[in-house]
Amino acid sequence: MSVTLYTSYAKGFLRSHELAALQPQVTAAHELLHSGNGLGNDFLGWVDLPVNYDKEEFARIEAAAARIRRDTDVFVVIGIGGSYLGARAVIEFLKSPNYNLLVKEAPQVVFAGNSISADAMNDVLALCEGKRVSVNVISKSGTTTEPAIAFRVFRDYLEKTVGKEEARRRIYVTTDRARGTLKELSDREGYETFVVPDDVGGRFSVLTAVGLLPVAVAGCDIAALMAGAAAAREAYTDPAIEVNDCYRYAAARHAMLRRGRAVELMVSYEPRYALMSEWWKQLYGESEGKDGKGLFPASVIFSTDLHSLGQFVQDGSNILFETVMQFDTPPSDLTIREEEENGDGLNFLAGKTMAEINRKAFEGTVLAHADGDTPSLVLQLPKMDEYNLGYLIYFFEKACAVSGYMLGVNPFDQPGVEAYKRNMFALLGKPGYESEREALEKRLGR
Amino acid sequence: MSVTLYTSYAKGFLRSHELAALQPQVTAAHELLHSGNGLGNDFLGWVDLPVNYDKEEFARIEAAAARIRRDTDVFVVIGIGGSYLGARAVIEFLKSPNYNLLVKEAPQVVFAGNSISADAMNDVLALCEGKRVSVNVISKSGTTTEPAIAFRVFRDYLEKTVGKEEARRRIYVTTDRARGTLKELSDREGYETFVVPDDVGGRFSVLTAVGLLPVAVAGCDIAALMAGAAAAREAYTDPAIEVNDCYRYAAARHAMLRRGRAVELMVSYEPRYALMSEWWKQLYGESEGKDGKGLFPASVIFSTDLHSLGQFVQDGSNILFETVMQFDTPPSDLTIREEEENGDGLNFLAGKTMAEINRKAFEGTVLAHADGDTPSLVLQLPKMDEYNLGYLIYFFEKACAVSGYMLGVNPFDQPGVEAYKRNMFALLGKPGYESEREALEKRLGR
Repeated sequence: MSVTLYTSYAKGFLRSHELAALQPQVTAAHELLHSGNGLGNDFLGWVDLPVNYDKEEFARIEAAAARIRRDTDVFVVIGIGGSYLGARAVIEFLKSPNYNLLVKEAPQVVFAGNSISADAMNDVLALCEGKRVSVNVISKSGTTTEPAIAFRVFRDYLEKTVGKEEARRRIYVTTDRARGTLKELSDREGYETFVVPDDVGGRFSVLTAVGLLPVAVAGCDIAALMAGAAAAREAYTDPAIEVNDCYRYAAARHAMLRRGRAVELMVSYEPRYALMSEWWKQLYGESEGKDGKGLFPASVIFSTDLHSLGQFVQDGSNILFETVMQFDTPPSDLTIREEEENGDGLNFLAGKTMAEINRKAFEGTVLAHADGDTPSLVLQLPKMDEYNLGYLIYFFEKACAVSGYMLGVNPFDQPGVEAYKRNMFALLGKPGYESEREALEKRLGR
Repeated sequence: MSVTLYTSYAKGFLRSHELAALQPQVTAAHELLHSGNGLGNDFLGWVDLPVNYDKEEFARIEAAAARIRRDTDVFVVIGIGGSYLGARAVIEFLKSPNYNLLVKEAPQVVFAGNSISADAMNDVLALCEGKRVSVNVISKSGTTTEPAIAFRVFRDYLEKTVGKEEARRRIYVTTDRARGTLKELSDREGYETFVVPDDVGGRFSVLTAVGLLPVAVAGCDIAALMAGAAAAREAYTDPAIEVNDCYRYAAARHAMLRRGRAVELMVSYEPRYALMSEWWKQLYGESEGKDGKGLFPASVIFSTDLHSLGQFVQDGSNILFETVMQFDTPPSDLTIREEEENGDGLNFLAGKTMAEINRKAFEGTVLAHADGDTPSLVLQLPKMDEYNLGYLIYFFEKACAVSGYMLGVNPFDQPGVEAYKRNMFALLGKPGYESEREALEKRLGR
């Protein structure tokens, strides 16, 4: 097993019978998921994706990525939500949060169309100046406002800078298999297309073309990523929580919720993990935050944020529990030198590596927070590589599905995301929203 | 006034008498603060800092920054917590979150020593390769583990790459005025030093040399920053909340807490604001998260996170309220073009600017979230520039002090931050912690 859950750090917070008492609910959730009889059962494509994925398309992704790595300096990835977070999180985890600053022989990968900020868009345009640019637009419908605006801008940019013909070669579209405005445009223009599957929701799509193309462009081994996910799929078929850490995680966080913890705080001691926490926040927040329910997902990087939110976690309101990511082997290490003068008093660390010290910071923190009435669940992985990340992604996805069914919600829809869009369209004067507009303007006191 | 608070978006959540009913507590907190009789009254230096700051040192900061801008490609800023977040937040807000990718004629500003990740340190070392490097180490005591480790590494790096003599010219130290290991070392080596004042806590220190030197190196106008803060200091002297939006913000968030909201979610529609939210999270989390009390501070960037956490905010557990930052004029804008084919259906936006659309997204979202039982406080500023940011920083600092006193805590200490450090030292075998170590190892099951 790649991912191991330790609940021992939460001793005194989770009694030994508590998780066992939840086994029947875990089993019921497992059966809902595997029978396909649960809510949202149109969106279960992610379950078998690690083995059932389209091999021909996978080869095309690898070929396109190889081409882009040769002919591109800046790869602009246009997408929002699940069409944005997964790819960025995987690249930062596997390469670095400073990937674009450090990369030399391969393209920078920059993200656009994930906000309505002109300022953010202008930054990306400035990064493209004088560079060989390719674009990957990712949108199932092709009509989501943020990416659609960005695609208008960057298609125009490409056509103006390299001409219509070359622009056609430099635009890659990830969209619906058969329908929609982006698919039609692609067929007309001859863009290479990849598929957002019908049965995989945005937040579960990182292991489809949605995530895989940008990730492959950054030079990550996407076959190893899929292999890890496939291994996790194999590992988590038995509903018994004594042997299924994925389900045990679902049960443990459910127990925390029922004990009145309102916030799950995702913790890592490696800055590379920060965007993975953002991906996780979407996965859990959007899957469970409905019908007035759900744990609020938040995240920190320690020890960085021990010097900002640490005080709150240690001694503030007792509304939190932590889920702590631990990696046996970080991607690189560094040994502390002896210094003759020892003015900083650090010589007791001489000869130790930062990985060892970081590990002790983790252990010391978990115990300190337990003393401060904040329990921790710990997820341990051997390495920060493609295989283990693929494994972890599947672990979180399956735990999320089971957790959502235990909570009594549809883990695969997101009806609440439409509410702001409707209001925004009405306020912007979109045809068909006239009556709403008046009511909204009135509420705004106009 | 630069900052305006709108509580009208929280109509139906805050009754008209609720804030008035808190006026006596606001007044009491105001008097505690201004009389210097409250808890933590050794740390009130930030109150008059915008006018009382050391003008001679300020000139030295500007001179050093000008020198560094001429002779440096990569400026490495070593610090953690309040010695890290403020400077980074101000640079990203005033320049860009992509500052280091975009900057051409001035130094990159990179941050080190804010975690125990070797990987993060090795990234910074890689960014320094072949570049002209200068270092600013920021630590009151000089013995905080994270920055002390990083300073060992970068001092060594500089001495090896440019020699001891040149390294002396390239190391800038921000530390205690008179005492401590860094001050002693600086005097011995001849490093230029700047002061972390005794009466200004880390999280209130962004407008001291701690924040100002890196900010000035990035090319921001630090005089305008101070002028904004000075104007805010003038503006918020009357305790009456009808005329004091700073105190009205403190009262409104206090009312939300008493109504059972557990989490304050800081929202902005500009990605440039993301690190300012991190600075705010330290300011409020560390000031109020104690004695089992406090609102948990979290943050998002919309519309980005409307496609991740938006579902939760709209329709999940009702534990949140939002504080939304709004800027009348973003740093840059972009107009949506008409497109003949209109496949994406965006032509109803043609001729509108992204700033206008972003504004409608904000209005639509605030109303949608109110319908979903999540109220919003709105803070509006005219511009994203130095003056308004200085004003806002002071606004948040003073509101935080008043809010902390209303909560009945010491807003200026952080005793809980020590707990993990003690455990970590013991587990690392630091001399003097032997007895603790045994107990901790036992709890870890060893």
